[in-house]
Amino acid sequence: MADKIFRVNMSDLSTKVEAVPEAWMGLGGRGLTSTIVAAEVNPTCHPLGKNNKLVFAPGLLSGTPAANSGRLSCGAKSPLTGTIKEANAGGTSAQMLAKLGVKALIIEGKPADDSKWYSLHVNADGVTIKEETEVIGLGNFAVVQTLNNRLGDKVGVITIGPAGEMKMLGANISIKDPDSHMRSNGRGGLGAVMGSKKVKFISVEPTDQKVAIADPEAFKAANRTFAKALVDNPISKALAQYGTNVLVNIINESGGLPTQNFTRGQFEGHEAVSGETMYDTIVARGGKPKHNCHPGCVIQCSQIYADAKGQYKTSGFEYETIWALGADCCIDNLDYVAEADNLMDDIGLDSIEIPVAFGVAMEAGVLKFGDGAELCRILKEEVAKGTPLGRIIGNGAGSVGKAFGVTRVPVVKNQAIPAYDPRAIKGIGITYATSTQGADHTMGYTIATNILGVGGKVDPLSKEGQVELSRNLQIATAAIDSTGMCLFIAFAALDDATCLPALIDMINARFGIKLTAADVTNLGMTILKTERAFNLAAGFTNKDDRLPEFFSEEPIAPHNVVWDITDEAIDSFWNF
Amino acid sequence: MADKIFRVNMSDLSTKVEAVPEAWMGLGGRGLTSTIVAAEVNPTCHPLGKNNKLVFAPGLLSGTPAANSGRLSCGAKSPLTGTIKEANAGGTSAQMLAKLGVKALIIEGKPADDSKWYSLHVNADGVTIKEETEVIGLGNFAVVQTLNNRLGDKVGVITIGPAGEMKMLGANISIKDPDSHMRSNGRGGLGAVMGSKKVKFISVEPTDQKVAIADPEAFKAANRTFAKALVDNPISKALAQYGTNVLVNIINESGGLPTQNFTRGQFEGHEAVSGETMYDTIVARGGKPKHNCHPGCVIQCSQIYADAKGQYKTSGFEYETIWALGADCCIDNLDYVAEADNLMDDIGLDSIEIPVAFGVAMEAGVLKFGDGAELCRILKEEVAKGTPLGRIIGNGAGSVGKAFGVTRVPVVKNQAIPAYDPRAIKGIGITYATSTQGADHTMGYTIATNILGVGGKVDPLSKEGQVELSRNLQIATAAIDSTGMCLFIAFAALDDATCLPALIDMINARFGIKLTAADVTNLGMTILKTERAFNLAAGFTNKDDRLPEFFSEEPIAPHNVVWDITDEAIDSFWNF
Repeated sequence: MADKIFRVNMSDLSTKVEAVPEAWMGLGGRGLTSTIVAAEVNPTCHPLGKNNKLVFAPGLLSGTPAANSGRLSCGAKSPLTGTIKEANAGGTSAQMLAKLGVKALIIEGKPADDSKWYSLHVNADGVTIKEETEVIGLGNFAVVQTLNNRLGDKVGVITIGPAGEMKMLGANISIKDPDSHMRSNGRGGLGAVMGSKKVKFISVEPTDQKVAIADPEAFKAANRTFAKALVDNPISKALAQYGTNVLVNIINESGGLPTQNFTRGQFEGHEAVSGETMYDTIVARGGKPKHNCHPGCVIQCSQIYADAKGQYKTSGFEYETIWALGADCCIDNLDYVAEADNLMDDIGLDSIEIPVAFGVAMEAGVLKFGDGAELCRILKEEVAKGTPLGRIIGNGAGSVGKAFGVTRVPVVKNQAIPAYDPRAIKGIGITYATSTQGADHTMGYTIATNILGVGGKVDPLSKEGQVELSRNLQIATAAIDSTGMCLFIAFAALDDATCLPALIDMINARFGIKLTAADVTNLGMTILKTERAFNLAAGFTNKDDRLPEFFSEEPIAPHNVVWDITDEAIDSFWNF
Repeated sequence: MADKIFRVNMSDLSTKVEAVPEAWMGLGGRGLTSTIVAAEVNPTCHPLGKNNKLVFAPGLLSGTPAANSGRLSCGAKSPLTGTIKEANAGGTSAQMLAKLGVKALIIEGKPADDSKWYSLHVNADGVTIKEETEVIGLGNFAVVQTLNNRLGDKVGVITIGPAGEMKMLGANISIKDPDSHMRSNGRGGLGAVMGSKKVKFISVEPTDQKVAIADPEAFKAANRTFAKALVDNPISKALAQYGTNVLVNIINESGGLPTQNFTRGQFEGHEAVSGETMYDTIVARGGKPKHNCHPGCVIQCSQIYADAKGQYKTSGFEYETIWALGADCCIDNLDYVAEADNLMDDIGLDSIEIPVAFGVAMEAGVLKFGDGAELCRILKEEVAKGTPLGRIIGNGAGSVGKAFGVTRVPVVKNQAIPAYDPRAIKGIGITYATSTQGADHTMGYTIATNILGVGGKVDPLSKEGQVELSRNLQIATAAIDSTGMCLFIAFAALDDATCLPALIDMINARFGIKLTAADVTNLGMTILKTERAFNLAAGFTNKDDRLPEFFSEEPIAPHNVVWDITDEAIDSFWNF
């Protein structure tokens, strides 16, 4: 059975199953969501109005046995940035949707009556819309628990928390993982778009259907090679032990760990929140240091972090979140950080945007730097309840800066800058500035080459080579984000000559086609250009591809360097 | 003594008096503030950072005996819109500064130590900076009272209220009028720029110096003709009796009175807040229906509105404010409207931006439409005190829309659309869309020709002729705003053939030059192009010259019309 487009119109509560247009055939994941958004959404529309569309798409390899292929892309015009947006996450839904034959799920329109909420249920026949009351207002954990009870443990769940219901610009979309915990399409306020359409959750029916593979033997052989490349990679091993939080000590050592709302590059409390401390704590408390966010992951960078009583506290406990609460908000206590992560998972908040917003709020004097208890109180009693302060913070770092008149506001295109200071690690600054999605390290992770020595070495403090580095990585990332693959395959892909060919072999075996490495590069370039064209049509210009003024004016210790890459160099990014 | 540039650097607390550069010689008012901002401010700087500059300039005729020439222009990069900004107001300071020989006062930099506040005192020798503590945190009325006591009743005062101190984006700059009440450089958050520089107030020393006039006899003759044209004009007479609020019934009748957050074009409670009701109330309570905002005004559209006990409540009680609180917030009670106006004068808030923000907040359910008591409570207890809700509202209509996820948000370039619905009065929509300053009726007041039959007649509901109308008026306005003249001279200038030549004769007599009408038009065009160039360099594009989506999608009663002027037609505005 050929894959189909599942389309839901929330204005008249109708649904359709459509054939996949020729132009979308070879696309998946980000390539498909961005192509659909660019084709069907007016770039100047209000992101929370009826003319925006929310698009989910599994990757090209999702649903197959390919290792690490369980990412679900979600796209729309972002209410946070005003740009096109794609965010992807693990969990079980991508593979389930792919097996059901869903090439993409498009949610358009919005109900004229703002008072009712709905759920969508997806099975092989299409989508069913139902009015929903029971879980409205509930946090994500309760939604998943309720739906597990209602529909069985195997059901796939894509949901928004109270933040999304309140259309906060820092609201994410959460996807149930194999242990009924949360993975997040985190960035850009996509949860607010889902909330604006009055969809509280999407449930996905388990199926015995399988994804068709044109050449099963070739696929199996390629997957073996691919999985071995992932497992053998030294960074994969570090991720398996310490999670992404292995980076706290590494980035602190580099002097690029933004601390106290980006006023210095090292955090005196780094040991307290490091990956090593986290690992020891997890082991001591009987948590799980290794955990997969979706079936088929061979890296297992996730973990189960338990509190002092051994009770589950959080998983998918990422470096960027721990950095933001730890170094940027100066909270040198991993239990407060875990508690905040748990709350953000439950409320449905981007755990980069919101902690960075707290850093700005701390600078404004709303709460003190380091006050983890007050931060958790504000999350619980203000943000989750939508008080005015809660809305200011829930709308992100730019919102807090505007509300309180702060000028040191680390955002690009109104999206919070994550865990790597662009003054001390200049390649990542190019990514922040030029990304089609606002500041986002995952769009072109130059840290690999600037700091980790993967894919060669480019001096993080030099101006040389950063644009090319970011460009090559952004192109590659756009392609990887289209496969359904986790981005962490990139470490192996950059340094192990067997990895990328095996990935391409799998795509070819899946569809019975003959893509080359050049085709994949072209796909990445086409995606970036499609996204850029949307943004230009929305009114963005090169002037938006800039870091905030303070990066050029305030040197950051210990290297005492400023952001000094010229506008002309930044703009040369698009010369391809 | 030649006029000078008075320059204050708040970074190092130094001051200078400089010769006027050749290029600025023939400029005054808006022409000068925009030229200085364009020349000296980086268009991409943070508006509340040290790289923005706040520029005050009296008009070309300010300080002379010319009728109605007492407007003071203030310019900067706006923190509300991100565009260049000029706002002008009456009061006594423009004429005093001109007599002191101040061509422009430029305030640049900002103190590194954020904890201290300062005042500036201007006399003929220059500017003195002093640390200030006594009036910090006080409202504008108390500031003026304190300074009258400290420096004498004749002192000129330019001040910010608590809103400006807190850098709210709806903060205005207030100028003392002849009765020690407030006139406002209202729009664009210029008060926040002054607050960011830690300047609470500027006092201006009274002087016996006179402005030099090259040909006194010619000047006197021209001024006589000019003043007669103003006084004889029928619209001047209506303004003298009912103030600008004469418009409530007129615009309601036209179907273009935006009501209940722009959801219909007529307000059932219009009689309760009309100019006629206001006049009767003022007379009954022993207020003053006629009042001048600056010495030498012969129109006197201001008034003193007293409460039921005969106590002063407000003056400069403008149609746009009364519309916004009355029709847009559905408050059909002039005393609540006057109380809110008084509070906004005292707190230092733009009385268009903030009431429109309340209309959006009412739609969001923060308070009920029509609840004047709660609106006044929020102004007093939330906005004036800078609570989170107060900051959301104090930052304007766009801020409220973002905070609460409202999509019907009447702003252009993030500045609130004032009292004339662009669906039913299409010419003003062109002004809102294309103005270099965000939505602002005063930038090209097509109501004159669309509704009042001044300067010909262009059908407000037709698409024909609106771009040309707005263009001609925006060019003329830019020139008038450079003279120090009140914009209300435009009614006489458009319909009385003696008026404009007399104005030009006065300028020529003042400076001993020979400007023609064509020169004045060229000045207006040059100013608009200078401002537009600044905005383009700041990253604005034609895409920003658009009305919000809802105007094209929601027909407005009673005419049931939408905004239907094409993007191409809007963009043709700049063909000159």
